Amino acid sequence: MSEFSQVTVVREANIFFDGGVTSRTLIFPDGRKKTLGIMQPGEYEFTTHSAELMEILAGDLDVQLPGADDWQTFAAGESFEVAAHARFGLRVRAVTDYCCSFL
Amino acid sequence: MSEFSQVTVVREANIFFDGGVTSRTLIFPDGRKKTLGIMQPGEYEFTTHSAELMEILAGDLDVQLPGADDWQTFAAGESFEVAAHARFGLRVRAVTDYCCSFL
Repeated sequence: MSEFSQVTVVREANIFFDGGVTSRTLIFPDGRKKTLGIMQPGEYEFTTHSAELMEILAGDLDVQLPGADDWQTFAAGESFEVAAHARFGLRVRAVTDYCCSFL
Repeated sequence: MSEFSQVTVVREANIFFDGGVTSRTLIFPDGRKKTLGIMQPGEYEFTTHSAELMEILAGDLDVQLPGADDWQTFAAGESFEVAAHARFGLRVRAVTDYCCSFL
């Protein structure tokens, strides 16, 4: 297990796709933000505002990165980056725990 | 929106019932613990270790408190307490966002 210390956590969850994707927002002392989230099995599409680093803590999913035709598989311990203002697709096979860092 | 500041957050999620209930653990400077969690629609049963205060932030569910035959409905803004080492049942009708304080 790992921890983030000295952070502020927004109490209310971010809820997307009728609960298919949910997360909590963490704000760090230097103003950086991360979300810790859960993706239920299903297909989702997100568009970023700022660039993001998505770290997979547990789970199994395929990701179609911006501009790509193919889908890449990601599992626990792996990560991917998405540029700002870019669309990416997710096919989640197993409940997936993730950490999203806004870059 | 409300916030918890100066907390430590365990990065990895707590995942129960194949993702039906998931949560993040927050540790406060004085050592108190809370979890912020999401319940997907479904039926669940938990047994407490320590006494708990469950605050419903969003959602709609029925709860069978320890020793009760009837089920009580809870919604956003409402809460219930469960004694230590006690079983309680949950029938979740809509994705439910909650804050659990370990007393």
